[in-house]
Amino acid sequence: MNPGRLEKQIRFLVEADKLKDIYRRSFLVNGSRKENDAEHSWHFALCALVLREYADEPDLDLLTVLKMALVHDLVEIYAGDTYIYDAAGRETQAAREREAADRLFPMLPREQAEEFRRLWMEFEEKRTKEARFAGAIDRLQPLLLNYFSGGESWREHGVNAEQVFEITSRISEGSMTLWEYARGLIREAVDGGILPG
Amino acid sequence: MNPGRLEKQIRFLVEADKLKDIYRRSFLVNGSRKENDAEHSWHFALCALVLREYADEPDLDLLTVLKMALVHDLVEIYAGDTYIYDAAGRETQAAREREAADRLFPMLPREQAEEFRRLWMEFEEKRTKEARFAGAIDRLQPLLLNYFSGGESWREHGVNAEQVFEITSRISEGSMTLWEYARGLIREAVDGGILPG
Repeated sequence: MNPGRLEKQIRFLVEADKLKDIYRRSFLVNGSRKENDAEHSWHFALCALVLREYADEPDLDLLTVLKMALVHDLVEIYAGDTYIYDAAGRETQAAREREAADRLFPMLPREQAEEFRRLWMEFEEKRTKEARFAGAIDRLQPLLLNYFSGGESWREHGVNAEQVFEITSRISEGSMTLWEYARGLIREAVDGGILPG
Repeated sequence: MNPGRLEKQIRFLVEADKLKDIYRRSFLVNGSRKENDAEHSWHFALCALVLREYADEPDLDLLTVLKMALVHDLVEIYAGDTYIYDAAGRETQAAREREAADRLFPMLPREQAEEFRRLWMEFEEKRTKEARFAGAIDRLQPLLLNYFSGGESWREHGVNAEQVFEITSRISEGSMTLWEYARGLIREAVDGGILPG
């Protein structure tokens, strides 16, 4: 074994700890505080594990989906979380995240750096069935938090049903069943007065 | 699709959100606060992904290891986190966690409840190569946090090098390379004055 190799891997894993301090806009279900990217990544992976039967392309590789869940937000350690309803932030997001990837992934040994970058790009581009299902789960999970925490994040940011509908419609690219379910939740949120119609 | 089935799965995933509020004894690397179980589960899975080449039994199934990482602490939603150096707590831990499993996993459809319980038991029993490597990573990850955060958690709980050595020696059941590395870290922690020798 090359001892420098393990040292590099450990330094990367210690740097990755910073994902626990990147906060998102969604609240935990109990409403006590906002969720961070590390928790989201775990919950995303757990949702994928439980809900994989609803993928429209059923022969997908679950291992690849789980790897994407673990890796997809790492660039936010340097680029920060960009709120999905922040149009200005989203214009610069791609460039900021590419710079972050150029800084973060090369901490790993070369072939692992390439694998992590490939997983991140695959998730971003949504050209594979694994990425489409992962993308669906990545939109469903915050919808669950926002709905079951009573809509606090929607209120805080003045978001309405049309915006939620548009953003979560990405779910339909990976799972029509989950998209049907999500549409039902949005309707219930409007009917229940926790999301402006 | 059976609509009751998806509702059950969603209720389970919403209940699982509570793992984000189960706090551990380790501090984040930046020392700002303690880590919770959801963050730990993500970091454990990421460590397994990066370090799998060091497993002593190299033909292991990474998908199973990642599933264990995602699932292994879920019972703590009801049983709480038992500090690994708390001998009294550890006496009742198995019974408390079994009760928690009986309450949590049956929220899922039957065959998923059985899969989750099997993964959790497999991890606990350490009879498979996947469980032994997962167990090694589960002990290495907090050692990294404790060392790179400057030993605050060790100080807070009055833990010495002999205790850390004994608990982390479990790493040797899954990876001699990582155990050599861990022993080096413990020695450096003692030499650096952040862990009583």
